[in-house]
Amino acid sequence: MGEHQIAAPQKPEAKPVFARSWMERLRVSRFWSSIADRGGRFAALPAANIDPGERARLLAAALISGRGEASGAAVARELHAVLTALDPPRRLGFYRYLAENFQPDAEPLAAAARAYLTEPTAGTAARLAEAAEPVRQEVLRRMNMSPGGTAMLVAMRKEILGLLRDHPALQPLDADLKHLLASWFNRGFLELRRIDWNTPAAVLDKLIAYEAVHEIAGWDDLRRRLAADRRCFGFFHPALPGEPLIFVEVALVTGLAGSVKALLARDAGDDEQRARAAAADTAIFYSISNCQDGLRGISFGNFLIKQVVEELRIELPQLQRFSTLSPVPGFCAWARARLEETERAALERPDWWEDAQVSAALQAPLLKLCAEYLTSVVKGKGPADPVAKFHLGNGARLERINWLGNVSPRGLAESFGMMVNYLYDIATIEANHEAFVRDWTIARSDEVEGLLAEAPAPRRRRFGGLASRS
Amino acid sequence: MGEHQIAAPQKPEAKPVFARSWMERLRVSRFWSSIADRGGRFAALPAANIDPGERARLLAAALISGRGEASGAAVARELHAVLTALDPPRRLGFYRYLAENFQPDAEPLAAAARAYLTEPTAGTAARLAEAAEPVRQEVLRRMNMSPGGTAMLVAMRKEILGLLRDHPALQPLDADLKHLLASWFNRGFLELRRIDWNTPAAVLDKLIAYEAVHEIAGWDDLRRRLAADRRCFGFFHPALPGEPLIFVEVALVTGLAGSVKALLARDAGDDEQRARAAAADTAIFYSISNCQDGLRGISFGNFLIKQVVEELRIELPQLQRFSTLSPVPGFCAWARARLEETERAALERPDWWEDAQVSAALQAPLLKLCAEYLTSVVKGKGPADPVAKFHLGNGARLERINWLGNVSPRGLAESFGMMVNYLYDIATIEANHEAFVRDWTIARSDEVEGLLAEAPAPRRRRFGGLASRS
Amino acid sequence: MGEHQIAAPQKPEAKPVFARSWMERLRVSRFWSSIADRGGRFAALPAANIDPGERARLLAAALISGRGEASGAAVARELHAVLTALDPPRRLGFYRYLAENFQPDAEPLAAAARAYLTEPTAGTAARLAEAAEPVRQEVLRRMNMSPGGTAMLVAMRKEILGLLRDHPALQPLDADLKHLLASWFNRGFLELRRIDWNTPAAVLDKLIAYEAVHEIAGWDDLRRRLAADRRCFGFFHPALPGEPLIFVEVALVTGLAGSVKALLARDAGDDEQRARAAAADTAIFYSISNCQDGLRGISFGNFLIKQVVEELRIELPQLQRFSTLSPVPGFCAWARARLEETERAALERPDWWEDAQVSAALQAPLLKLCAEYLTSVVKGKGPADPVAKFHLGNGARLERINWLGNVSPRGLAESFGMMVNYLYDIATIEANHEAFVRDWTIARSDEVEGLLAEAPAPRRRRFGGLASRS
Amino acid sequence: MGEHQIAAPQKPEAKPVFARSWMERLRVSRFWSSIADRGGRFAALPAANIDPGERARLLAAALISGRGEASGAAVARELHAVLTALDPPRRLGFYRYLAENFQPDAEPLAAAARAYLTEPTAGTAARLAEAAEPVRQEVLRRMNMSPGGTAMLVAMRKEILGLLRDHPALQPLDADLKHLLASWFNRGFLELRRIDWNTPAAVLDKLIAYEAVHEIAGWDDLRRRLAADRRCFGFFHPALPGEPLIFVEVALVTGLAGSVKALLARDAGDDEQRARAAAADTAIFYSISNCQDGLRGISFGNFLIKQVVEELRIELPQLQRFSTLSPVPGFCAWARARLEETERAALERPDWWEDAQVSAALQAPLLKLCAEYLTSVVKGKGPADPVAKFHLGNGARLERINWLGNVSPRGLAESFGMMVNYLYDIATIEANHEAFVRDWTIARSDEVEGLLAEAPAPRRRRFGGLASRS
Repeated sequence: MGEHQIAAPQKPEAKPVFARSWMERLRVSRFWSSIADRGGRFAALPAANIDPGERARLLAAALISGRGEASGAAVARELHAVLTALDPPRRLGFYRYLAENFQPDAEPLAAAARAYLTEPTAGTAARLAEAAEPVRQEVLRRMNMSPGGTAMLVAMRKEILGLLRDHPALQPLDADLKHLLASWFNRGFLELRRIDWNTPAAVLDKLIAYEAVHEIAGWDDLRRRLAADRRCFGFFHPALPGEPLIFVEVALVTGLAGSVKALLARDAGDDEQRARAAAADTAIFYSISNCQDGLRGISFGNFLIKQVVEELRIELPQLQRFSTLSPVPGFCAWARARLEETERAALERPDWWEDAQVSAALQAPLLKLCAEYLTSVVKGKGPADPVAKFHLGNGARLERINWLGNVSPRGLAESFGMMVNYLYDIATIEANHEAFVRDWTIARSDEVEGLLAEAPAPRRRRFGGLASRS
Repeated sequence: MGEHQIAAPQKPEAKPVFARSWMERLRVSRFWSSIADRGGRFAALPAANIDPGERARLLAAALISGRGEASGAAVARELHAVLTALDPPRRLGFYRYLAENFQPDAEPLAAAARAYLTEPTAGTAARLAEAAEPVRQEVLRRMNMSPGGTAMLVAMRKEILGLLRDHPALQPLDADLKHLLASWFNRGFLELRRIDWNTPAAVLDKLIAYEAVHEIAGWDDLRRRLAADRRCFGFFHPALPGEPLIFVEVALVTGLAGSVKALLARDAGDDEQRARAAAADTAIFYSISNCQDGLRGISFGNFLIKQVVEELRIELPQLQRFSTLSPVPGFCAWARARLEETERAALERPDWWEDAQVSAALQAPLLKLCAEYLTSVVKGKGPADPVAKFHLGNGARLERINWLGNVSPRGLAESFGMMVNYLYDIATIEANHEAFVRDWTIARSDEVEGLLAEAPAPRRRRFGGLASRS
Repeated sequence: MGEHQIAAPQKPEAKPVFARSWMERLRVSRFWSSIADRGGRFAALPAANIDPGERARLLAAALISGRGEASGAAVARELHAVLTALDPPRRLGFYRYLAENFQPDAEPLAAAARAYLTEPTAGTAARLAEAAEPVRQEVLRRMNMSPGGTAMLVAMRKEILGLLRDHPALQPLDADLKHLLASWFNRGFLELRRIDWNTPAAVLDKLIAYEAVHEIAGWDDLRRRLAADRRCFGFFHPALPGEPLIFVEVALVTGLAGSVKALLARDAGDDEQRARAAAADTAIFYSISNCQDGLRGISFGNFLIKQVVEELRIELPQLQRFSTLSPVPGFCAWARARLEETERAALERPDWWEDAQVSAALQAPLLKLCAEYLTSVVKGKGPADPVAKFHLGNGARLERINWLGNVSPRGLAESFGMMVNYLYDIATIEANHEAFVRDWTIARSDEVEGLLAEAPAPRRRRFGGLASRS
Repeated sequence: MGEHQIAAPQKPEAKPVFARSWMERLRVSRFWSSIADRGGRFAALPAANIDPGERARLLAAALISGRGEASGAAVARELHAVLTALDPPRRLGFYRYLAENFQPDAEPLAAAARAYLTEPTAGTAARLAEAAEPVRQEVLRRMNMSPGGTAMLVAMRKEILGLLRDHPALQPLDADLKHLLASWFNRGFLELRRIDWNTPAAVLDKLIAYEAVHEIAGWDDLRRRLAADRRCFGFFHPALPGEPLIFVEVALVTGLAGSVKALLARDAGDDEQRARAAAADTAIFYSISNCQDGLRGISFGNFLIKQVVEELRIELPQLQRFSTLSPVPGFCAWARARLEETERAALERPDWWEDAQVSAALQAPLLKLCAEYLTSVVKGKGPADPVAKFHLGNGARLERINWLGNVSPRGLAESFGMMVNYLYDIATIEANHEAFVRDWTIARSDEVEGLLAEAPAPRRRRFGGLASRS
């Protein structure tokens, strides 16, 4: 959406034809009814008569008129159709119109504010809340009445999120959309579904598209991720059938997995995969991806992991351990300033990690640094690493840091190849969480504790002979 | 729930253990975490330690603490279990607790109110709305995270509606519940389903229980209502599977049906029913019932009728007419003062309607009176008759008034046996609605117009010889 | 298929308009095609042109003509429609036509028979089997190609079974139908489904209609049979959706139930029913009913009981015992001749079983007699009692005989009120069955063994004072 | 399965332990019961005690013993498990055992044969059919009682078909399997299902594997075949869920499509595909593939095409034409001997079809030749081309021969690139079929008629200058 395009909505038509008070709203409704009287059903209006952007705005206004009350579903359906065909500049114009209008009525709101300030009781607070509620939310709720309305609103928020930086005036619209979507996508309305090779291809397609951690390289790779020693679960919402909101990929393994490569390898046949599943004592959550940009800021991951743990405990009672294998996205950036110069030099070599000696020399100091990074807390904000913050906030424990757990280019660039296990232990999950919330206490294993306690001194020495090699 | 029972919540425990500000809330969370630390999972706490009413309140508080964010689903599940087992007085106590606490924080709200009054812009209005939103709604949203949470909240509101008169303090809780449920039961989330003899018995059971217009006298009667020349549709919500929200019963007939008796008769065999369906040119909506008291005030009927019209047009393209056969619940009360004395006397005889002469004498004046009643408007409120107000507000037309259309005791007592057809005509529905909203213009057929235009004079005379007969 | 075969169907109605040989069949097919040429599709032919019975016969013949091979589904559909509208005499005519025609070709069959007699090898036997297969079975298989064809064939067999006595010529048709249906309703194609209050009413309806052991007195009674402490399972076939083939009713109880009355009582509320189910250690199979007369002689009961035992063991691992509570339909008839005169006299009194003294006097001798009856074997045929024969043949053990277990009129009339438990014990079921098959050995409990061992002497004496009382 | 492998079944164990008469069968049953008595359930038998091949044979025998009647499902399940783990030589041994045993009882069969020869009536024929029915079919029916039994039998037949040439003794087993499967996979039991992008990936996988006409090159190609302007339908059987039996691919186009390339091109976006579907007047059936080798010889294609035509007429009433675009697999082989020498030479050049002049010279003579090929009839066998025979036998009309309709290597090698349209015209389908069955009359369009009527003379001349170019 280019810069010049936004000129359009700044023309008079962008000025709220539609007024702010309910009384004016009624007037619009009158206007509408007269159109309706002349033209019969709206769909019959010749498109030439009215600009489609204007038409969208009039329909949005009609939605909260008396007409919207009686024929809301029909108006919503028509608005949906009009919006679908709108070009980007007109869409932006429509969003601005929504963002700038549909305020609460000024008079009653001021009165309620004064009443509350005079006597701040539960009653005056309740009346103030009522007077303050933006009419816009009701407009959005009524837009939802169209078939496919929820999907449209989610798509709308996705687009608005992309426009926000250049168009901060859309902020109130985004806030209202997020508030509504958070209420509608409440955990109580989500369905957990297992995703496997019997899932419709249209859903699997989306897994390939949305996978955000370890890219899925086509259908054969996908098939491996859904094999007998794997599990995949997602949350779905009844109004978005066939659209995963979030999904998690799980590997059934023996012992705590420390390396991504083994998990993603396509090495085993069906029988071996089944045998592995039967023998597994550990479930590794190795990838979790949000799918809907339009639901950004509405959190599902915590619920998903915990419910999947419950599901797996029922299906596979032999499982002893539930853990992630997670990236450390912020480590390199954080660590660079803290590295010795020789370390830095060593790490600059293209394939440093394939040189056994270099790798051995770097292992201990980097592991220790990583432990320090993962347990460091930014004042008032918690752990610096976002992935750590997520899992620790869920009540997981920092269990193990894996040297060269992910030697993909991205893994090396983000974290010098390190991967981390966060352990979800039902028995301690609540206490971990509480301690974390209280004062950012970070639950950690003895092994991590050991790394932190290691003396830093020997670091330099280990690199004694390295410089000459490069 | 008797009067003496409400003593309980007035004891100290009803006083908000729980404080109003978020800071205090955090303290509660601390308290909780220490309990959790000692006792492990909550379910493990000995029930003797803590009163279940108190437990429910603590859990509700925990829901919006940090703990609720991490383990919300688990806390919600536990709260659900505790509430299920609570006795009525403690339940009332819990409701009062919800109603009286979880206010917005006073300080920020006052500041936002002052800011808005100083400078009433979109921005200050948005911040005021945010500051004013009752925390209680978030508590309710988190209660919804429990499996079966939505059903619990709907049941809760049903109970609260019954308590409101004696406990007006519950009003804010009811308002928040209604606001949330209206958003969640948005038309966009409802599923229209046909209900027939292949529907699970558990759903059909509810039809028998909820039918509010023409009682269903058991399963054989129900079977008649679902026969080949009948249709029944209901709205369902994904979170309440198996629970109709509202349903409508339709008869497929030839010509406009004026009498309930024929519609409810169980006279025809399967083949005849199929033949009637094939020959029908008219769909009569003869009963529409809301099922969920907990959703009172959230309107589904308008949407349901219109979508069923669309469904039937697709299934049975030969249908020419869509009409209700509706009661006139307020007619008798309204009419009595307007009757001639001889009329009144005649109508007091037990079986006046079976006496052909009496009936003939009353027919014209009562039909005219009924037409006057149905087209009369209470200033600022619209039609006096609630059923008329509903259908006319939907855009239907007052089509025909049927003499002795319902001679059941209830029909006679409410409306001297009269029944009314409201016609849903796609071509005029919007215009009718707009005119109605504008100035209570009531769309009516020529036939009704004729009744209104009739001279009143002959009324008395027709009754000339009647008095002597009694 | 030789010419002389057309001798067989020589009676008038059997006179083949339609010829018996394949060559003639082809000719008919020609005839048909010319009709088709003139009249377009068959459905367009005026009904007046041809008698519907004749039409049905021609279509059946067409099914195995070349035409049937290409347009079999269309011809089958048309035949289905014609048969549906046929009157009973014409239907009988059609059945006779099927029964008397569609023989194997005589020449090849005779040749194959001779070849086998000359050299009885696997090869000649196979060729003889092929030559002998009645063309009729192929006709029936092709009739099945119509939508609803399987249901039609089942209904057809039901009607034919009712006609067999008066029309023994239908025997070959019945035999072919049974052979086909037994193959199609093979256990491998049946689906076990739980039936409960969430089952479509149309299926539940059939339970009421088909229950053959303890009549279901309407929907309220049915609801009791599907309550939380009950289970009901049925077999269904994919081609007859919504039609149970057989169903079994199970009560979850504590200890072995001996009386029908307690099982059928509608005394408990939902909570109590759930509590009973949770506490139950025994599953009582108290009713098993075949639903489809048209599948008579094709056995499902054995499979059903055993699979339901497996299902219940999974759902309710606490169950210790699986037993029937079964009637003894043949006991009275068998016992009468063996009763003492005083016993006979006592049993003739209308309510003898309510007289404690009489009942006490009769109990021991009748229990012993019943044990003798149930363990008696008709030479070459096994147990005299059909219910005993069924369960013992399945491998169950005769566990207990219950005095006054069923005091309904039918129970008294059949078995002097006695009911029997047959125990299905996984550990012994195969051995019991094998012993039964080998030499009619009847597995029985020590308790039953004790009854059999009782001395008969005291019988007379117990009745010392009874005669005078009557 | 190599030659040395078949050694195994020739050892004594292959000799029927199991005897041929029912009396002997009973003895085996005895044997079994004694094993059962000692070892409890069969699964408990130590595997070492008995060779798995022998075990399979004993279980098959047990299936038709008394034991099979009572515990058939359990025995079938065990046999299934044993067979699954059997190695190929032992499997062959098992097949031979099935093929060579389970004959009808010799004595009764001979008697029935004699009775029939003495007096060939319907009655003696029926009794002979009964006596001749191979017990083996009952064994196979009982094997079907295991969960997954049907799939196992289909797989078994597939393997046997591959063994038949080297082991003709398996013929009777194959015949019985085919007979049973044909009865079980009767059209009346098949479900037509649309296959699209919402179909489970596990089913789509099979499309890629089974496509026999135009190879599907992975998932992206598959997606094209299921796009908005395509349709795909398959038949499924309830006992093989997720396994298509046959599927057909259809393209929605405007006008009769003559070239495969256009149909398979992945050129259009979603919107264009939808637009094409909306504008289409013709459905082209461009690929039809059988999926189950084990069902070879059981015909589904005729039914599938006709039902898909019906489905499409309902979904897309604007369709005017239903036609195939089919290969001509036998043309090259047939044509070679009939070509002029210059033609032959021209066709030997690698890319002759890309040379406009050569192609132009060859077009007319080859089209005429192809028309002659497709309308030529092998005496007593019908059309030489198998694809032509299939569609003409279904009642389709030979509509058009397309020059260079398929220039893939296979298309060129089989038919010099020619493709044919067979038109399925509801109005003439039956008459076409009848005429074809009667005397191989081949329905053809005027265009094809024109090709046939063309004078052959100019052929040579057109090639006048060609020889010099090569």
